[in-house]
Amino acid sequence: MGGDHGPKVTVPSAVDFLHRNPTTNIVLVGILDSIEAELRALRFTSNPRLKLHGASEVVDMDESPSLALRGKKDSSMRVAINLVKNGTAQACVSAGNTGALIATSRFVLKTLPGIDRPALAVVLPTMNGHTYVLDLGANVDCSSEHLLQFGVMGAALVSSVENKDQPSVGLLNIGEEAIKGNEVTKQAAELLRVSGLNFYGNIEGDDIYKGTTDVVVCDGFVGNVALKTSEGVAQMFAKYLRQEFKRNFLTRVAGLVAIPVIKALKARVDHRRYNGASLLGLYGIVVKSHGSADRYAFGFAIKRAVEEIHGEIQHQISERMLESPHHSTSSPNSQPPSKEDVA
Amino acid sequence: MGGDHGPKVTVPSAVDFLHRNPTTNIVLVGILDSIEAELRALRFTSNPRLKLHGASEVVDMDESPSLALRGKKDSSMRVAINLVKNGTAQACVSAGNTGALIATSRFVLKTLPGIDRPALAVVLPTMNGHTYVLDLGANVDCSSEHLLQFGVMGAALVSSVENKDQPSVGLLNIGEEAIKGNEVTKQAAELLRVSGLNFYGNIEGDDIYKGTTDVVVCDGFVGNVALKTSEGVAQMFAKYLRQEFKRNFLTRVAGLVAIPVIKALKARVDHRRYNGASLLGLYGIVVKSHGSADRYAFGFAIKRAVEEIHGEIQHQISERMLESPHHSTSSPNSQPPSKEDVA
Repeated sequence: MGGDHGPKVTVPSAVDFLHRNPTTNIVLVGILDSIEAELRALRFTSNPRLKLHGASEVVDMDESPSLALRGKKDSSMRVAINLVKNGTAQACVSAGNTGALIATSRFVLKTLPGIDRPALAVVLPTMNGHTYVLDLGANVDCSSEHLLQFGVMGAALVSSVENKDQPSVGLLNIGEEAIKGNEVTKQAAELLRVSGLNFYGNIEGDDIYKGTTDVVVCDGFVGNVALKTSEGVAQMFAKYLRQEFKRNFLTRVAGLVAIPVIKALKARVDHRRYNGASLLGLYGIVVKSHGSADRYAFGFAIKRAVEEIHGEIQHQISERMLESPHHSTSSPNSQPPSKEDVA
Repeated sequence: MGGDHGPKVTVPSAVDFLHRNPTTNIVLVGILDSIEAELRALRFTSNPRLKLHGASEVVDMDESPSLALRGKKDSSMRVAINLVKNGTAQACVSAGNTGALIATSRFVLKTLPGIDRPALAVVLPTMNGHTYVLDLGANVDCSSEHLLQFGVMGAALVSSVENKDQPSVGLLNIGEEAIKGNEVTKQAAELLRVSGLNFYGNIEGDDIYKGTTDVVVCDGFVGNVALKTSEGVAQMFAKYLRQEFKRNFLTRVAGLVAIPVIKALKARVDHRRYNGASLLGLYGIVVKSHGSADRYAFGFAIKRAVEEIHGEIQHQISERMLESPHHSTSSPNSQPPSKEDVA
């Protein structure tokens, strides 16, 4: 168990989840001594829906993904993904090293037919709800075909977890006109237009938070910059707000009066509620939690995994790839599962 | 005179500026009837520091840049840039069509030695001051050499308008480690490292608003997405704040008490104060105002142009290009001017 806090966060969070969700089974994968110590600290008594599975190693947060893949065959990450591969678990949730999780998942689980690379999708709050953005950093040098595949996977994700038949898909660009953008986005727009998806067209950065479309497609470099930039703006806004309320006696009084409002605002933009990036396009469900997630936040990543199990995300992606004029000739063989087991 | 509002905004704003800045001369370029009508509406009496220069056409906001360049030889935009070219004015400020302004400026003024393409730089507020970001959309498919040139131009801009000898330059990336990023940014980091600039290294999206570096370098696609995304987050934050203060009677009372604080916050993040993107790398100063700028905002774009005249921006860029190991062999011949004339 990786992440910035290891089992100290993931074990209590999993136990919380288990108590709140009576149909979910959880397998805790990691160094057994550490996991058992955490369970004892929680005064946890045995539960048939909680199993432990030993792994002798942990992938470090700053370890090279390729070294982790080749060198740590018995890491908690690798073992958990193997459990998904062999059907013991239906999803893997990890707060560990992002690069290693992507590389290992891809190597062990393999990509679905027609999908060249897995993509990371997150949910972001918007003015009128929320939107799904991908890719968030799994792929930094993308072709137009990759962007098309992201569109298919994003639409499949929204269909599977939100029961929307035809989610709208926007292509993140620097202008709404069809002639705008770099070469890759121009070609991607052409592909998306004839893809059979509900393609809205080009959108701009502010459309993410306007909630213009259900899905926002971009390459991983742009997506990652957009996400981190958003975090930066939010932090600056919060800091300015604090400073202005502390400016003098009167503003401090105003601050006291406004406490419930500020609290409500904070809860509304609480990024912990959006924790859990879906690694899409694989024969198996993998959800990446933020490394710094706390007990509360990590639960949302588990929830996301369970939603994808119920929504039969692999099946959704495979079906949409078959409908797309650019689909591969091989047929999908994902097995939609009936009950959720999370590792 | 273009922009969303035309002379209705730019003429009063220019007159305001003239009154506040006794050493600046302004040439208003456009359809004389429209300009004179605005001046009459302002009850403006003649002033030796304000001149008018006729132009028979206006570039439309949605006109193709290449058509504007070829077809509208007597547009206010083209004529104003010509005034810079022939030395009548020392800078051109425009709220018009961005693409046409870049294409026309580049064609008429030409790029400085060693600069392949002009870049658009804006100032953004940070937690501890402000930072300069380029490119913001002038260049969507950039090579690593272009990013290096952006670094040189950004450092020159900060040196010229803020009197900083060695501004720090960050490369916008998706991780701080040197191995992170796409191929272009990896190569650009190598070039920046040996450029003689005060290169900080890779930075991430949130570093823009943390104010980690004086200059943030990125390609125009990424820069434009980051800027628009920031606007989207700020708008969402503002909307949420409004909604929370309007939730019930008590929160409305809190809202009334907090009015001065909210006003102070709004003033602090008022994007109008950051209006004016510098088009850098040309034999001449060109500043792009936001098309929707109002009378107050447009004044900041004029101010930016005057600062660049005083800071001898062309000279700063040329000198830094000569110092860079990648500089061109031809020598710069920009003429640092002594008194500001804005068209």
